[in-house]
Amino acid sequence: MIEEKIPYKIYLSENELPRQWYNLRADMINKPAPLLNPKTMKPITKEELSGVFCDELIDQELDENTPYFDIPTPIRDFYKMFRPAPLIRAYCLEEKLGTPAKIYYKFEGNNTSGSHKLNSAIAQAYYAKEQGLKGVTTETGAGQWGTALSMASAYFGLDCKVYMVKVSYEQKPFRREVMRTYGASVTPSPSMETEVGRKILEKFPGTTGSLGCAISEAVEKASTTEGYRYVLGSVLNQVLLHQTVIGLETKAALDKYNVKADIIIGCAGGGSNLGGLIAPFMREKIKGVRDYRIIAVEPESCPSFTRGKYTYDYCDTGMICPLAKMYTLGSGFIPAATHSGGLRYHGMNPILSQLYDDGLMEAVTVKQTEVFAAAQEFARVEGILPAPESSHAIKVAIDEALKCKETGEEKTIVFGLTGTGYFDMVAYQRFNDGKMTDYAPTDEEIEKGFASLPNLDL
Amino acid sequence: MIEEKIPYKIYLSENELPRQWYNLRADMINKPAPLLNPKTMKPITKEELSGVFCDELIDQELDENTPYFDIPTPIRDFYKMFRPAPLIRAYCLEEKLGTPAKIYYKFEGNNTSGSHKLNSAIAQAYYAKEQGLKGVTTETGAGQWGTALSMASAYFGLDCKVYMVKVSYEQKPFRREVMRTYGASVTPSPSMETEVGRKILEKFPGTTGSLGCAISEAVEKASTTEGYRYVLGSVLNQVLLHQTVIGLETKAALDKYNVKADIIIGCAGGGSNLGGLIAPFMREKIKGVRDYRIIAVEPESCPSFTRGKYTYDYCDTGMICPLAKMYTLGSGFIPAATHSGGLRYHGMNPILSQLYDDGLMEAVTVKQTEVFAAAQEFARVEGILPAPESSHAIKVAIDEALKCKETGEEKTIVFGLTGTGYFDMVAYQRFNDGKMTDYAPTDEEIEKGFASLPNLDL
Repeated sequence: MIEEKIPYKIYLSENELPRQWYNLRADMINKPAPLLNPKTMKPITKEELSGVFCDELIDQELDENTPYFDIPTPIRDFYKMFRPAPLIRAYCLEEKLGTPAKIYYKFEGNNTSGSHKLNSAIAQAYYAKEQGLKGVTTETGAGQWGTALSMASAYFGLDCKVYMVKVSYEQKPFRREVMRTYGASVTPSPSMETEVGRKILEKFPGTTGSLGCAISEAVEKASTTEGYRYVLGSVLNQVLLHQTVIGLETKAALDKYNVKADIIIGCAGGGSNLGGLIAPFMREKIKGVRDYRIIAVEPESCPSFTRGKYTYDYCDTGMICPLAKMYTLGSGFIPAATHSGGLRYHGMNPILSQLYDDGLMEAVTVKQTEVFAAAQEFARVEGILPAPESSHAIKVAIDEALKCKETGEEKTIVFGLTGTGYFDMVAYQRFNDGKMTDYAPTDEEIEKGFASLPNLDL
Repeated sequence: MIEEKIPYKIYLSENELPRQWYNLRADMINKPAPLLNPKTMKPITKEELSGVFCDELIDQELDENTPYFDIPTPIRDFYKMFRPAPLIRAYCLEEKLGTPAKIYYKFEGNNTSGSHKLNSAIAQAYYAKEQGLKGVTTETGAGQWGTALSMASAYFGLDCKVYMVKVSYEQKPFRREVMRTYGASVTPSPSMETEVGRKILEKFPGTTGSLGCAISEAVEKASTTEGYRYVLGSVLNQVLLHQTVIGLETKAALDKYNVKADIIIGCAGGGSNLGGLIAPFMREKIKGVRDYRIIAVEPESCPSFTRGKYTYDYCDTGMICPLAKMYTLGSGFIPAATHSGGLRYHGMNPILSQLYDDGLMEAVTVKQTEVFAAAQEFARVEGILPAPESSHAIKVAIDEALKCKETGEEKTIVFGLTGTGYFDMVAYQRFNDGKMTDYAPTDEEIEKGFASLPNLDL
């Protein structure tokens, strides 16, 4: 391999770290539909949200007109510990594939949370601190978001209370210990600490918990404890706003070397990393500056975009949080038990849902075994062991690069590598042992999920 | 916190990646004593080593005069995936401690092996490939070195056979799965695959293995299989040579900002990371260009420098490998079972041993619980969850910074942060639960280790 003009890793300097987040809604022609109050089914107000969320974050959640929000200096200082994140040219993968395509990936895994989640965790912790709060509550499944929030809370001296789904708490103790090392209190959910937890435990004494139950406990704890608010790590527009730091850096790095992207690819669970990555590119697409193919990749077993409905739905299974208009499988949809990693959320961020409905982006599903095979291939040539979530994007990036090999086109492909798989070795083991399987929900299972949709007359 | 002239992270460009490793022996006034053939007790020759080690690596091992070795382009290309590694200014830690000291750390953990081990693994795999070999064998305890070698072998398409101490294979399955994901075959040791393994299993049917036994199996496998050689991850001079990329980058980054270090601190197990970090600074110290305090930090439970003897000893418990003159506790020394993480090797690299004996560097021991307390403090302000090994250096860096706070001196402290603790959460859990203990070997235990030293009449 020869010395190339474009380095393996493009690092922006700390001075080039974005000073503002970009609010994509400001440039959208069709704005996402407003959130609804679950009690009144009317658009929710700041006042109605203020018992649960931090004030500044509510402003960010509801504002669809301000194009840029300043990133406060303490958040930028924290970002400097792990940002600007590198944009990596996948020379070794290109060579392995024998493709004329140029492949780049934005790597968000070089921090102890292991993913992009920290970008929003530190912002949410900062605003909680600024508001004079004592602490924050949240739920976590496998623990990626809980880890990020624990780190952010430790930095600002906030108390952090994480409700962790009991089965994960017991079977995946390592992320739990990372959270504890950062000073968070981690409670297996359901717990005796909340009314909703006690009720569930009474009804189902042996339950191993669910994300829906953990959310309900975290929300109850926040709204009944003086000086606490509830925060969460995806789906909401505020989270997508914070994650635009990913896309802004990516675009700045490409611009620095005068590289024009053709295809942007990201994995899609709740949608915050995807939305953050594509935001500045989508802006150019909307404004007619440049056309991009933008591809959301979702797991076959949880296909919100590709098999979901675009309608109002609850964001949580407990139906406490506001309703959002989004592509959804219904809050009662249950992904296959064989599905590994994240990306198991039933709905999709409202901004992305609107963009998809407007035909501004594509969505594809991929099979789990193909995702892990792509992850392994990537790890062996590019060095980084990717998170299962991120590997969905890898799979489609490889597919697109192989298409270029057939056609001879030298397309530039950019994908988001959201994190590392160091805490996902149980899933890798299943793959290494040849025991991983694929699963697509049947039409009946999809219909069953839709049956949980609210019956609204709007 | 204000924008400072020196960034949080100093990144060299890829063009500034060192083009040569530095052979510190060339500038040493007292050279380290030669390795001895365990059969003849005479200085070992290239021919005698060639059945076990790769030819080019033997040259590097034995050469004490060539000051610089070119880093071959394929190795530099691989380095570019994770190097130059950042030199980080610990602004947040300084603020937390309220010290006038300036603290920098060289962070080697931003790669999937999670440590500096990859610097030498890729070099050793490259030379094996160049020699036309089919594969390499090695042993691993908790799996850090095995992981690095698996990654390097996958990159060059070499077969990689790892003998993993059985108790770790069973109780720490995650690093094992990382190795398997990179295509390595991982065998719990002792195994039925080797003569030595079969003998041990016959004698001790229920044994959970030891590093000494795994080394013996790996060496036997390499020397009895066509096209295979044995490689290892520390102690040897060749490994220290490859690790000088750490120190060379560190010095280049400091020079770039005209920063003069006063104190250099590294943790010491077999010594390769410490030797790699300090090499270019030691060169200046030997040549009288600038004086540095250089501090090796070892665990209280395995104090090779501070309580060992400077004498010839076996490098492996199986007494198959050459003997080295080094600070050693005796190959029969057994660290306390309560000791976590690495740094449990009985001896110290011969170069470092000579430098220490010449009074060119200091050594201190630290208690395990203090190390984990320092690790936790560091993680909460600097974001990175450090490896237990690396945290030995953190502890002493904090101690030195606090001394500066007392005296008001603005010293510049540089330490090596060799890796991340993501696969060490069992030890962190013990600390979080308040169950971690300290242990210093008794004089009797030290004497018992010395009793295993060879009785040489040299």
